[in-house]
Amino acid sequence: MSLIEDLNWRHAVKAFNPDKKVSEENIEKIIEAARLAPTSSGLQPFRIINVSDQETKEKLVTGALNPDSMKECSNVLVFAAWDNYTAERIDKVYDFTTEERDLPKGRFDSYTDKLKEMYLNQPAEYNFAHTARQSYIGLGLALAEAAELRVDSCPAEGINNQLVDEVLELGKHGLKSVSVMYVGYADESRDWVKPMKKVRIPRSEFVIDVK
Amino acid sequence: MSLIEDLNWRHAVKAFNPDKKVSEENIEKIIEAARLAPTSSGLQPFRIINVSDQETKEKLVTGALNPDSMKECSNVLVFAAWDNYTAERIDKVYDFTTEERDLPKGRFDSYTDKLKEMYLNQPAEYNFAHTARQSYIGLGLALAEAAELRVDSCPAEGINNQLVDEVLELGKHGLKSVSVMYVGYADESRDWVKPMKKVRIPRSEFVIDVK
Repeated sequence: MSLIEDLNWRHAVKAFNPDKKVSEENIEKIIEAARLAPTSSGLQPFRIINVSDQETKEKLVTGALNPDSMKECSNVLVFAAWDNYTAERIDKVYDFTTEERDLPKGRFDSYTDKLKEMYLNQPAEYNFAHTARQSYIGLGLALAEAAELRVDSCPAEGINNQLVDEVLELGKHGLKSVSVMYVGYADESRDWVKPMKKVRIPRSEFVIDVK
Repeated sequence: MSLIEDLNWRHAVKAFNPDKKVSEENIEKIIEAARLAPTSSGLQPFRIINVSDQETKEKLVTGALNPDSMKECSNVLVFAAWDNYTAERIDKVYDFTTEERDLPKGRFDSYTDKLKEMYLNQPAEYNFAHTARQSYIGLGLALAEAAELRVDSCPAEGINNQLVDEVLELGKHGLKSVSVMYVGYADESRDWVKPMKKVRIPRSEFVIDVK
Protein backbone atom coordinates (compact mmCIF):
# COMPACT_ATOMS: atom_id res chain seq x y z
CA MET A 1 0.00 0.00 0.00
CA SER A 2 1.11 3.56 -0.61
CA LEU A 3 1.13 6.47 1.81
CA ILE A 4 -1.70 8.10 -0.15
CA GLU A 5 -3.82 4.97 0.14
CA ASP A 6 -3.05 4.83 3.86
CA LEU A 7 -4.05 8.47 4.32
CA ASN A 8 -7.28 7.87 2.45
CA TRP A 9 -7.97 4.87 4.68
CA ARG A 10 -7.49 6.72 7.98
CA HIS A 11 -10.03 8.94 9.70
CA ALA A 12 -10.29 10.49 13.14
CA VAL A 13 -11.96 7.62 15.01
CA LYS A 14 -14.62 8.86 17.41
CA ALA A 15 -15.07 5.74 19.58
CA PHE A 16 -12.68 2.96 20.55
CA ASN A 17 -13.36 -0.62 21.63
CA PRO A 18 -11.99 -0.75 25.19
CA ASP A 19 -11.35 -4.49 24.94
CA LYS A 20 -9.06 -4.38 21.90
CA LYS A 21 -5.46 -3.52 22.65
CA VAL A 22 -2.80 -2.60 20.10
CA SER A 23 0.23 -4.91 20.11
CA GLU A 24 3.43 -3.57 21.60
CA GLU A 25 5.12 -4.20 18.25
CA ASN A 26 2.72 -1.86 16.48
CA ILE A 27 2.96 0.82 19.17
CA GLU A 28 6.73 0.71 18.78
CA LYS A 29 6.44 1.21 15.01
CA ILE A 30 4.14 4.20 15.50
CA ILE A 31 6.61 5.72 17.96
CA GLU A 32 9.49 4.96 15.60
CA ALA A 33 7.88 6.96 12.79
CA ALA A 34 7.68 9.97 15.11
CA ARG A 35 11.25 9.44 16.30
CA LEU A 36 12.43 9.57 12.68
CA ALA A 37 10.59 12.85 12.03
CA PRO A 38 12.76 15.67 10.75
CA THR A 39 12.81 18.71 13.04
CA SER A 40 14.27 22.20 12.89
CA SER A 41 18.09 21.96 13.05
CA GLY A 42 17.65 18.29 14.00
CA LEU A 43 17.02 19.23 17.63
CA GLN A 44 14.07 16.82 18.10
CA PRO A 45 12.60 19.13 20.73
CA PHE A 46 9.64 16.88 21.55
CA ARG A 47 8.97 13.62 23.33
CA ILE A 48 6.19 11.05 23.48
CA ILE A 49 4.59 9.84 26.68
CA ASN A 50 3.14 6.42 25.94
CA VAL A 51 0.27 5.89 28.39
CA SER A 52 -1.32 2.45 28.52
CA ASP A 53 -2.03 2.44 32.27
CA GLN A 54 -5.78 2.69 32.74
CA GLU A 55 -5.64 4.59 36.00
CA THR A 56 -3.37 7.25 34.48
CA LYS A 57 -5.59 7.56 31.42
CA GLU A 58 -8.55 8.23 33.67
CA LYS A 59 -6.66 10.95 35.49
CA LEU A 60 -6.22 12.75 32.15
CA VAL A 61 -9.92 12.78 31.26
CA THR A 62 -11.10 16.04 32.85
CA GLY A 63 -11.36 18.72 30.22
CA ALA A 64 -10.73 16.38 27.28
CA LEU A 65 -13.06 16.93 24.34
CA ASN A 66 -13.17 13.17 23.72
CA PRO A 67 -13.27 11.84 27.29
CA ASP A 68 -14.46 8.38 26.21
CA SER A 69 -11.60 8.02 23.75
CA MET A 70 -9.10 8.92 26.46
CA LYS A 71 -10.50 6.11 28.62
CA GLU A 72 -11.31 3.53 25.97
CA CYS A 73 -8.42 3.67 23.54
CA SER A 74 -5.54 1.26 23.92
CA ASN A 75 -2.70 3.79 24.23
CA VAL A 76 -2.68 7.54 24.66
CA LEU A 77 0.42 8.96 23.04
CA VAL A 78 1.03 12.41 24.49
CA PHE A 79 3.16 14.68 22.31
CA ALA A 80 5.06 17.06 24.58
CA ALA A 81 7.57 19.68 23.51
CA TRP A 82 10.53 21.32 25.25
CA ASP A 83 9.33 24.21 27.40
CA ASN A 84 12.29 26.25 26.11
CA TYR A 85 15.60 26.01 24.26
CA THR A 86 18.62 25.93 26.54
CA ALA A 87 22.37 25.79 25.83
CA GLU A 88 22.54 22.44 27.60
CA ARG A 89 19.78 20.88 25.47
CA ILE A 90 21.29 22.14 22.22
CA ASP A 91 24.78 20.95 23.19
CA LYS A 92 23.50 17.54 24.24
CA VAL A 93 21.98 16.90 20.80
CA TYR A 94 25.08 18.01 18.91
CA ASP A 95 27.52 16.24 21.25
CA PHE A 96 25.58 13.05 20.60
CA THR A 97 25.55 13.65 16.83
CA THR A 98 29.31 14.32 16.83
CA GLU A 99 29.87 11.06 18.71
CA GLU A 100 27.53 8.99 16.54
CA ARG A 101 29.16 10.29 13.36
CA ASP A 102 32.65 9.85 14.75
CA LEU A 103 33.51 13.48 14.05
CA PRO A 104 36.11 15.59 15.86
CA LYS A 105 34.80 17.17 19.06
CA GLY A 106 33.53 20.69 18.52
CA ARG A 107 32.73 20.05 14.84
CA PHE A 108 29.37 21.79 15.20
CA ASP A 109 30.44 24.59 17.58
CA SER A 110 29.91 27.44 15.15
CA TYR A 111 26.50 26.03 14.23
CA THR A 112 25.36 25.55 17.81
CA ASP A 113 26.63 29.06 18.63
CA LYS A 114 24.31 30.35 15.92
CA LEU A 115 21.39 28.35 17.32
CA LYS A 116 22.04 29.68 20.81
CA GLU A 117 22.20 33.22 19.52
CA MET A 118 18.90 32.66 17.75
CA TYR A 119 16.98 31.11 20.65
CA LEU A 120 18.49 31.92 24.03
CA ASN A 121 17.51 35.58 23.97
CA GLN A 122 13.90 34.79 23.18
CA PRO A 123 11.22 34.35 25.84
CA ALA A 124 10.36 30.76 26.77
CA GLU A 125 6.87 31.19 25.31
CA TYR A 126 8.29 32.11 21.91
CA ASN A 127 10.61 29.12 21.92
CA PHE A 128 7.85 26.77 23.05
CA ALA A 129 5.73 27.91 20.11
CA HIS A 130 8.60 26.74 17.91
CA THR A 131 9.23 23.41 19.66
CA ALA A 132 5.48 22.70 19.68
CA ARG A 133 5.33 23.20 15.90
CA GLN A 134 7.98 20.53 15.40
CA SER A 135 5.91 18.01 17.34
CA TYR A 136 3.21 18.21 14.65
CA ILE A 137 5.62 16.73 12.09
CA GLY A 138 6.00 13.73 14.41
CA LEU A 139 2.27 13.59 15.03
CA GLY A 140 1.56 13.49 11.29
CA LEU A 141 4.05 10.70 10.71
CA ALA A 142 2.78 8.69 13.68
CA LEU A 143 -0.78 8.95 12.31
CA ALA A 144 0.47 7.79 8.89
CA GLU A 145 2.31 4.85 10.43
CA ALA A 146 -0.79 3.78 12.39
CA ALA A 147 -2.76 3.93 9.13
CA GLU A 148 -0.17 1.79 7.34
CA LEU A 149 -0.59 -0.80 10.12
CA ARG A 150 -4.39 -0.46 9.88
CA VAL A 151 -4.47 0.61 13.51
CA ASP A 152 -7.13 3.21 14.30
CA SER A 153 -6.27 6.55 15.79
CA CYS A 154 -7.46 10.05 16.48
CA PRO A 155 -5.29 13.14 16.92
CA ALA A 156 -6.56 15.66 19.47
CA GLU A 157 -5.59 19.04 20.80
CA GLY A 158 -8.67 19.13 23.02
CA ILE A 159 -7.07 18.20 26.32
CA ASN A 160 -6.53 19.99 29.61
CA ASN A 161 -2.85 20.74 29.07
CA GLN A 162 -2.23 21.92 32.61
CA LEU A 163 -3.75 18.77 34.07
CA VAL A 164 -1.85 16.53 31.64
CA ASP A 165 1.42 18.28 32.51
CA GLU A 166 0.75 17.81 36.22
CA VAL A 167 -0.40 14.19 36.11
CA LEU A 168 2.54 13.14 33.93
CA GLU A 169 4.97 15.41 35.80
CA LEU A 170 6.18 16.85 32.51
CA GLY A 171 7.71 19.91 34.16
CA LYS A 172 10.49 17.85 35.68
CA HIS A 173 11.42 16.67 32.18
CA GLY A 174 11.36 20.26 30.84
CA LEU A 175 8.31 19.42 28.71
CA LYS A 176 4.82 20.78 28.14
CA SER A 177 2.01 18.79 26.51
CA VAL A 178 0.89 19.85 23.04
CA SER A 179 -1.45 17.21 21.65
CA VAL A 180 -2.44 13.59 22.05
CA MET A 181 -2.95 10.71 19.68
CA TYR A 182 -5.51 8.13 20.74
CA VAL A 183 -4.50 4.72 19.40
CA GLY A 184 -6.65 1.60 19.37
CA TYR A 185 -9.34 -0.15 17.39
CA ALA A 186 -12.64 1.54 16.61
CA ASP A 187 -15.94 0.53 18.13
CA GLU A 188 -17.66 0.72 14.77
CA SER A 189 -21.16 0.87 16.22
CA ARG A 190 -20.34 4.18 17.93
CA ASP A 191 -17.84 5.64 15.47
CA TRP A 192 -20.16 7.99 13.62
CA VAL A 193 -17.46 9.38 11.33
CA LYS A 194 -16.56 6.03 9.76
CA PRO A 195 -19.47 5.73 7.28
CA MET A 196 -19.05 9.33 6.16
CA LYS A 197 -17.22 10.47 3.07
CA LYS A 198 -13.73 11.86 3.66
CA VAL A 199 -13.81 15.53 2.71
CA ARG A 200 -10.89 17.68 1.70
CA ILE A 201 -10.91 20.96 -0.19
CA PRO A 202 -10.21 20.35 -3.87
CA ARG A 203 -6.68 20.50 -5.24
CA SER A 204 -7.61 23.64 -7.20
CA GLU A 205 -8.28 25.53 -3.96
CA PHE A 206 -5.45 23.95 -1.99
CA VAL A 207 -2.63 24.89 -4.34
CA ILE A 208 -1.45 28.06 -6.03
CA ASP A 209 0.79 27.19 -8.98
CA VAL A 210 3.53 29.61 -9.96
CA LYS A 211 5.03 28.25 -13.17
CA MET B 1 8.59 -0.28 1.11
CA SER B 2 7.26 0.82 4.47
CA LEU B 3 6.96 4.33 5.86
CA ILE B 4 9.74 3.59 8.36
CA GLU B 5 12.05 2.47 5.55
CA ASP B 6 11.15 5.62 3.61
CA LEU B 7 11.88 7.83 6.62
CA ASN B 8 15.22 6.12 7.11
CA TRP B 9 16.01 6.69 3.45
CA ARG B 10 15.29 10.43 3.46
CA HIS B 11 17.59 13.15 4.68
CA ALA B 12 17.62 16.93 4.38
CA VAL B 13 19.39 17.31 1.04
CA LYS B 14 21.87 20.19 1.09
CA ALA B 15 22.45 20.62 -2.67
CA PHE B 16 20.22 19.99 -5.66
CA ASN B 17 21.08 19.28 -9.27
CA PRO B 18 19.59 22.24 -11.17
CA ASP B 19 19.21 20.18 -14.35
CA LYS B 20 17.04 17.42 -12.89
CA LYS B 21 13.36 18.26 -12.64
CA VAL B 22 10.74 16.29 -10.72
CA SER B 23 7.88 14.99 -12.85
CA GLU B 24 4.54 16.72 -12.53
CA GLU B 25 3.04 13.37 -11.54
CA ASN B 26 5.36 13.09 -8.55
CA ILE B 27 4.82 16.71 -7.50
CA GLU B 28 1.08 16.07 -7.55
CA LYS B 29 1.49 13.03 -5.29
CA ILE B 30 3.57 15.04 -2.82
CA ILE B 31 0.91 17.76 -2.77
CA GLU B 32 -1.83 15.14 -2.41
CA ALA B 33 -0.24 13.73 0.76
CA ALA B 34 -0.32 17.21 2.29
CA ARG B 35 -3.90 17.76 1.12
CA LEU B 36 -4.95 14.58 2.91
CA ALA B 37 -3.31 15.68 6.17
CA PRO B 38 -5.62 15.78 9.18
CA THR B 39 -5.95 19.22 10.74
CA SER B 40 -7.64 20.65 13.80
CA SER B 41 -11.42 20.44 13.36
CA GLY B 42 -10.78 19.56 9.71
CA LEU B 43 -10.36 23.22 8.81
CA GLN B 44 -7.29 22.69 6.61
CA PRO B 45 -6.06 26.18 7.41
CA PHE B 46 -3.02 26.04 5.17
CA ARG B 47 -2.19 26.06 1.47
CA ILE B 48 0.74 25.16 -0.74
CA ILE B 49 2.29 27.51 -3.27
CA ASN B 50 4.00 25.31 -5.85
CA VAL B 51 6.79 27.40 -7.36
CA SER B 52 8.60 25.98 -10.38
CA ASP B 53 9.17 29.30 -12.18
CA GLN B 54 12.88 30.08 -12.04
CA GLU B 55 12.46 33.84 -11.94
CA THR B 56 10.10 33.62 -8.98
CA LYS B 57 12.41 31.23 -7.12
CA GLU B 58 15.22 33.73 -7.51
CA LYS B 59 13.09 36.50 -6.09
CA LEU B 60 12.67 34.40 -2.92
CA VAL B 61 16.39 33.88 -2.31
CA THR B 62 17.28 36.90 -0.17
CA GLY B 63 17.49 35.89 3.45
CA ALA B 64 17.12 32.17 2.78
CA LEU B 65 19.52 30.00 4.77
CA ASN B 66 19.90 27.66 1.78
CA PRO B 67 19.96 30.17 -1.09
CA ASP B 68 21.41 27.66 -3.55
CA SER B 69 18.67 25.14 -2.80
CA MET B 70 16.03 27.79 -3.42
CA LYS B 71 17.52 28.43 -6.88
CA GLU B 72 18.59 24.92 -7.83
CA CYS B 73 15.80 22.67 -6.64
CA SER B 74 13.08 21.65 -9.06
CA ASN B 75 10.06 22.95 -7.11
CA VAL B 76 9.79 25.13 -4.03
CA LEU B 77 6.65 24.17 -2.12
CA VAL B 78 5.76 27.05 0.18
CA PHE B 79 3.56 26.07 3.13
CA ALA B 80 1.42 29.06 4.05
CA ALA B 81 -1.20 29.23 6.77
CA TRP B 82 -4.34 31.32 7.23
CA ASP B 83 -3.42 34.65 8.80
CA ASN B 84 -6.46 34.32 11.07
CA TYR B 85 -9.66 32.36 11.63
CA THR B 86 -12.77 34.12 10.35
CA ALA B 87 -16.45 33.17 10.41
CA GLU B 88 -16.47 33.11 6.63
CA ARG B 89 -13.54 30.70 6.39
CA ILE B 90 -14.99 28.36 8.99
CA ASP B 91 -18.42 28.40 7.35
CA LYS B 92 -16.97 27.76 3.91
CA VAL B 93 -15.28 24.55 5.06
CA TYR B 94 -18.36 23.23 6.82
CA ASP B 95 -20.78 24.27 4.05
CA PHE B 96 -18.60 22.29 1.64
CA THR B 97 -18.47 19.28 3.98
CA THR B 98 -22.25 19.36 4.41
CA GLU B 99 -22.67 19.40 0.64
CA GLU B 100 -20.11 16.68 -0.04
CA ARG B 101 -21.71 14.40 2.54
CA ASP B 102 -25.21 15.17 1.35
CA LEU B 103 -26.28 16.24 4.85
CA PRO B 104 -29.08 18.66 5.73
CA LYS B 105 -28.01 22.31 5.63
CA GLY B 106 -26.92 23.58 9.02
CA ARG B 107 -25.97 20.11 10.26
CA PHE B 108 -22.75 21.48 11.75
CA ASP B 109 -24.09 24.82 13.02
CA SER B 110 -23.67 24.09 16.70
CA TYR B 111 -20.15 22.85 16.04
CA THR B 112 -19.10 25.84 13.95
CA ASP B 113 -20.65 28.13 16.57
CA LYS B 114 -18.30 26.54 19.09
CA LEU B 115 -15.32 27.01 16.79
CA LYS B 116 -16.20 30.65 16.24
CA GLU B 117 -16.55 31.20 19.97
CA MET B 118 -13.13 29.59 20.46
CA TYR B 119 -11.24 31.53 17.78
CA LEU B 120 -12.93 34.77 16.81
CA ASN B 121 -12.20 36.54 20.10
CA GLN B 122 -8.50 35.70 19.92
CA PRO B 123 -5.91 38.02 18.37
CA ALA B 124 -4.85 37.17 14.80
CA GLU B 125 -1.35 36.34 16.02
CA TYR B 126 -2.69 33.68 18.40
CA ASN B 127 -4.79 32.12 15.68
CA PHE B 128 -1.93 32.18 13.18
CA ALA B 129 0.22 30.27 15.69
CA HIS B 130 -2.49 27.61 15.60
CA THR B 131 -2.96 27.50 11.82
CA ALA B 132 0.83 27.43 11.34
CA ARG B 133 1.11 24.37 13.58
CA GLN B 134 -1.35 22.49 11.37
CA SER B 135 0.81 23.13 8.32
CA TYR B 136 3.59 21.04 9.89
CA ILE B 137 1.39 17.93 9.72
CA GLY B 138 1.12 18.51 5.98
CA LEU B 139 4.83 19.24 5.70
CA GLY B 140 5.69 15.96 7.44
CA LEU B 141 3.41 13.95 5.18
CA ALA B 142 4.69 15.68 2.03
CA LEU B 143 8.28 14.82 3.06
CA ALA B 144 7.24 11.21 3.64
CA GLU B 145 5.54 11.03 0.26
CA ALA B 146 8.62 12.42 -1.51
CA ALA B 147 10.71 9.79 0.27
CA GLU B 148 8.33 7.03 -0.85
CA LEU B 149 8.82 8.25 -4.42
CA ARG B 150 12.61 8.47 -3.87
CA VAL B 151 12.45 12.16 -4.67
CA ASP B 152 14.90 14.26 -2.67
CA SER B 153 13.78 17.11 -0.50
CA CYS B 154 14.70 19.46 2.29
CA PRO B 155 12.32 21.19 4.72
CA ALA B 156 13.32 24.70 5.74
CA GLU B 157 12.08 27.41 8.04
CA GLY B 158 15.04 29.61 7.15
CA ILE B 159 13.38 31.94 4.69
CA ASN B 160 12.61 35.63 4.65
CA ASN B 161 8.91 35.29 5.44
CA GLN B 162 8.05 38.91 4.76
CA LEU B 163 9.72 38.79 1.35
CA VAL B 164 8.08 35.46 0.47
CA ASP B 165 4.68 36.85 1.46
CA GLU B 166 5.22 39.92 -0.70
CA VAL B 167 6.60 38.17 -3.79
CA LEU B 168 3.83 35.56 -3.77
CA GLU B 169 1.19 38.12 -2.76
CA LEU B 170 0.03 35.84 0.02
CA GLY B 171 -1.79 38.62 1.84
CA LYS B 172 -4.48 38.81 -0.81
CA HIS B 173 -5.20 35.11 -0.18
CA GLY B 174 -5.31 35.66 3.61
CA LEU B 175 -2.14 33.61 4.00
CA LYS B 176 1.28 33.98 5.61
CA SER B 177 4.29 31.81 4.77
CA VAL B 178 5.46 29.33 7.40
CA SER B 179 8.03 27.00 5.85
CA VAL B 180 9.23 25.69 2.52
CA MET B 181 10.03 22.28 1.14
CA TYR B 182 12.71 22.15 -1.52
CA VAL B 183 11.98 19.28 -3.91
CA GLY B 184 14.33 17.90 -6.55
CA TYR B 185 17.22 15.52 -7.01
CA ALA B 186 20.43 15.86 -5.03
CA ASP B 187 23.71 16.91 -6.50
CA GLU B 188 25.55 14.18 -4.65
CA SER B 189 28.98 15.76 -5.08
CA ARG B 190 27.87 18.78 -3.04
CA ASP B 191 25.37 17.15 -0.68
CA TRP B 192 27.63 16.81 2.37
CA VAL B 193 24.92 15.28 4.58
CA LYS B 194 24.30 12.24 2.38
CA PRO B 195 27.32 10.13 3.41
CA MET B 196 26.72 10.83 7.10
CA LYS B 197 24.93 8.55 9.51
CA LYS B 198 21.34 9.50 10.29
CA VAL B 199 21.21 10.43 13.96
CA ARG B 200 18.19 10.38 16.22
CA ILE B 201 18.06 10.29 20.01
CA PRO B 202 17.55 6.73 21.21
CA ARG B 203 14.07 5.37 21.85
CA SER B 204 14.87 5.22 25.60
CA GLU B 205 15.27 9.00 25.73
CA PHE B 206 12.51 9.78 23.27
CA VAL B 207 9.70 7.98 25.10
CA ILE B 208 8.39 7.94 28.65
CA ASP B 209 6.32 4.79 29.21
CA VAL B 210 3.47 4.91 31.69
CA LYS B 211 2.18 1.34 31.98
